[in-house]
Amino acid sequence: MPPNPLAPAWLALPPDANALAPGLWPANASRTALGELEIGGVSASALVAEFGTPLYVVDEADARSRASELLRVFETEFARIGGEVHVYYAGKAFLSIEIARWMLDAGLNIDVCTTGELAVALAAGADPARLGYHGNNKSLAEIDEAARVRIGSLVIDSEIEIARVAAAAARHGVVLNVRLRVNSGVHASTHEFLATSHEDQKFGVVLGDAARLVALIRAEKSLRFIGLHCHIGSQIFGADGFAESASRLLAVHADLLDGGPVPELNLGGGFGIAYTNADTPTPIGELAARLADIVSAECTRRGIPIPTVAFEPGRVIIGPAGATLYEVGTTKPVDVSGDTRLYVSVDGGMSDNVRPALYGADYSVRLANRVSSADPVLVRLAGKHCESGDIVVSADYLPGDVAPGDLVAVPATGAYCWSLANNYNYLGRAPVVAVSGGQARVLVRGETIADLLARDAGWGHDQRVDTTNNSGSTTAHDGGTTR
Amino acid sequence: MPPNPLAPAWLALPPDANALAPGLWPANASRTALGELEIGGVSASALVAEFGTPLYVVDEADARSRASELLRVFETEFARIGGEVHVYYAGKAFLSIEIARWMLDAGLNIDVCTTGELAVALAAGADPARLGYHGNNKSLAEIDEAARVRIGSLVIDSEIEIARVAAAAARHGVVLNVRLRVNSGVHASTHEFLATSHEDQKFGVVLGDAARLVALIRAEKSLRFIGLHCHIGSQIFGADGFAESASRLLAVHADLLDGGPVPELNLGGGFGIAYTNADTPTPIGELAARLADIVSAECTRRGIPIPTVAFEPGRVIIGPAGATLYEVGTTKPVDVSGDTRLYVSVDGGMSDNVRPALYGADYSVRLANRVSSADPVLVRLAGKHCESGDIVVSADYLPGDVAPGDLVAVPATGAYCWSLANNYNYLGRAPVVAVSGGQARVLVRGETIADLLARDAGWGHDQRVDTTNNSGSTTAHDGGTTR
Ligand SMILES: Cc1ncc(COP(=O)(O)O)c(C=O)c1O
Ligand SMILES: Cc1ncc(COP(=O)(O)O)c(C=O)c1O
Repeated sequence: MPPNPLAPAWLALPPDANALAPGLWPANASRTALGELEIGGVSASALVAEFGTPLYVVDEADARSRASELLRVFETEFARIGGEVHVYYAGKAFLSIEIARWMLDAGLNIDVCTTGELAVALAAGADPARLGYHGNNKSLAEIDEAARVRIGSLVIDSEIEIARVAAAAARHGVVLNVRLRVNSGVHASTHEFLATSHEDQKFGVVLGDAARLVALIRAEKSLRFIGLHCHIGSQIFGADGFAESASRLLAVHADLLDGGPVPELNLGGGFGIAYTNADTPTPIGELAARLADIVSAECTRRGIPIPTVAFEPGRVIIGPAGATLYEVGTTKPVDVSGDTRLYVSVDGGMSDNVRPALYGADYSVRLANRVSSADPVLVRLAGKHCESGDIVVSADYLPGDVAPGDLVAVPATGAYCWSLANNYNYLGRAPVVAVSGGQARVLVRGETIADLLARDAGWGHDQRVDTTNNSGSTTAHDGGTTR
Repeated sequence: MPPNPLAPAWLALPPDANALAPGLWPANASRTALGELEIGGVSASALVAEFGTPLYVVDEADARSRASELLRVFETEFARIGGEVHVYYAGKAFLSIEIARWMLDAGLNIDVCTTGELAVALAAGADPARLGYHGNNKSLAEIDEAARVRIGSLVIDSEIEIARVAAAAARHGVVLNVRLRVNSGVHASTHEFLATSHEDQKFGVVLGDAARLVALIRAEKSLRFIGLHCHIGSQIFGADGFAESASRLLAVHADLLDGGPVPELNLGGGFGIAYTNADTPTPIGELAARLADIVSAECTRRGIPIPTVAFEPGRVIIGPAGATLYEVGTTKPVDVSGDTRLYVSVDGGMSDNVRPALYGADYSVRLANRVSSADPVLVRLAGKHCESGDIVVSADYLPGDVAPGDLVAVPATGAYCWSLANNYNYLGRAPVVAVSGGQARVLVRGETIADLLARDAGWGHDQRVDTTNNSGSTTAHDGGTTR
């Protein structure tokens, strides 16, 4: 069978359109003897029977082991050069109380950037000393709250924040550890990195201003300067961007040692993952080795001690551990100049995964309730929102007999999907369930229509509404309480 | 003063950077004697003191009169050619129970596309006969619910839906009015329109298939075919795209008359509005006249009766009636090759308005708490999310003394802002207030952190959380209950 000419160049015709490509799927995803997708020992149909569709599924063991494995690999590589690392899980990628606990259990710290994210981490039982706080425009109330709970560290993003943070720390009688966010001038995207002398962006200060601002920080009795911070982008495949920014930051870091200790260097997050077979992110082990080498070489060259190096990965830990289950509602072949694209519409869309619409992100899809030997056809997985840009998977191959009622699964939806979910068209947000050892449990329940209307001033709370699954699944189930 | 070379070509240096350009702002927006922005007779500072920031403000009188005026203008133009019109307010743009009531009061019908939107319209007291139901993938449960409430009309989007809708209608003993969504092959964007022989998109059926599918619909006893439906895009400025699709649809419409009556033609929504001074949408009166003329000419030429013409505008009614208030938290001048861009960070962002990130949409901004005679500077209004693409207004001029603590207002945020709002970084959604005659009242209260955590399975409902304004406003106010 030849590939469909409508397929994008990066999409190969798969030898088997049922195969779960390793690296794309949660570690504990497999096919049952009957061909169903199962994750963490729970079959897709069992999950859907209990929780409906759409459904966010997180492979708990995978998420936990990605967190602890990343920490172990970085610690090993940096131990090799005589250094230490701190890893902060970037809560923005996907935070719930349970997920925060998994990260803490694995030995990670947590990076938060609002009072809301802080509340989740604290509700998870986090020692505030293990939390870092970020943001280009933290409110006075947020800064105060961070100081009040004695946050482990806080990133200062602009000159104006120095006095704000110092005042809050003094008010609460604490000395706060602070970093200074700088623009290294390095921007990295998936496939390339750019290095300029400045950055035209809202975050951080220019490198040339760092010495002056660090002096201001050091002059504040309620602040303790711990080091520079940068974040060069997200979904980055190579190591070159990180290496370049590490070496630029270390030059400034070295100069700062004249004025006092600089125990740490924070290189941010951004490690990429595979969303399709065409994606080839650099393995974490390689990244860690490369970064340890560059830090070691730069420190030796400058004759300075190796600082603790901090990282803030989000996506690489939680992204691949998640998948989303949908039910197919309609299919429609569209003829485009003699070739056919099959539109497969599912019961979610840009409300549960806005990344394709927001970033042009590509995803993959597989049948979840069965395998099929039908010849693969090129599909576009569309959502149910009233918007033509509401696409979940722009292009992949599925067995040609995919039909209404089938379940499909989209892998690698653990990061930046639930966290960016919305209620467009008054669709309730889907529940999040963790699967592990054959058991599923709800991390975050789904929204009912009553939830969606609860804040509407015109809504009488005695009003009755049919609270069955708002997602529009055609599967019969009682979603009233579980969602 | 010369314009800033970093400004985009479309952005002119304003003679007065405090001016509220007519056409951009709610009809009842003005400056008080002290120079404050007031909307519907309520000053920005009074609104913020009561409700905090960010805050969605809707000018009730403006929204109501835009709805009734649009209906009146279309009715007048179509009466001139001996025709009638139906206007459906597209609920997807912005729906709350009160807003639905305003639209019904103005004589409009409402277009819904999920059980959730239907629930809002019904809670507003809508006669189901005045509701239209849409969607490329309505679930069986949704179709059943629409039939159960005796929805006024329903759009069939694909062949598979004919039997589904017919069965639901039969089950509830009703005859449902149905339209068939077709792809006219016309795509319109803001500044141009394209006409092709097909459309590679998830909605609707090809024109060439319409006759066969309408015959299938007519064969169902529980369905009554009322006409074709199309929607060619959104934020459209000219009339050419609508005219072209009207004439293409009328050709098919005329053929369908052989098989029975075709009382209606639905041309969808999509009329554009001004977000910046550079936007020049076609006035509604001109659009209506042009469409009436083309429908008249095509019907005369084909010797067919003039059908009722239906429209589904959303944005043009509610968009300009809304504005968003923010408080400035930080400012940061960034030097870009010798020119300066001032980053002004506010306490909202892509969570309350995702359109800039999603569509590259441009917006405008003005100081809200005061006027200033300081020379205008080029600003970029950034949000507070941990993402560099979190920009609210990419480029506008503000008085150069804009400073932390100032209030700013972004006009034309009534459509597709609240409806697409999310909780990224655990920011609670901002409240929506209606202003009118010097009074403000809450349409939808804002979210507290407790709201955000309520669905988390790890959240003990006895847990205490600081529920003061989650948005991060630096203004002191009690947001616990009003938000
Ligand atoms: C400062 C900072 N740190 C860490 C991250 C996490 O990035 P990722 O999930 O790509 O690792 C982000 C993402 O935007 C960020 O802004
Ligand atoms: C079928 C349909 N009708 C009406 C509308 C409303 O469009 P607008 O708000 O641009 O008028 C939309 C928007 O997507 C739509 O899909």
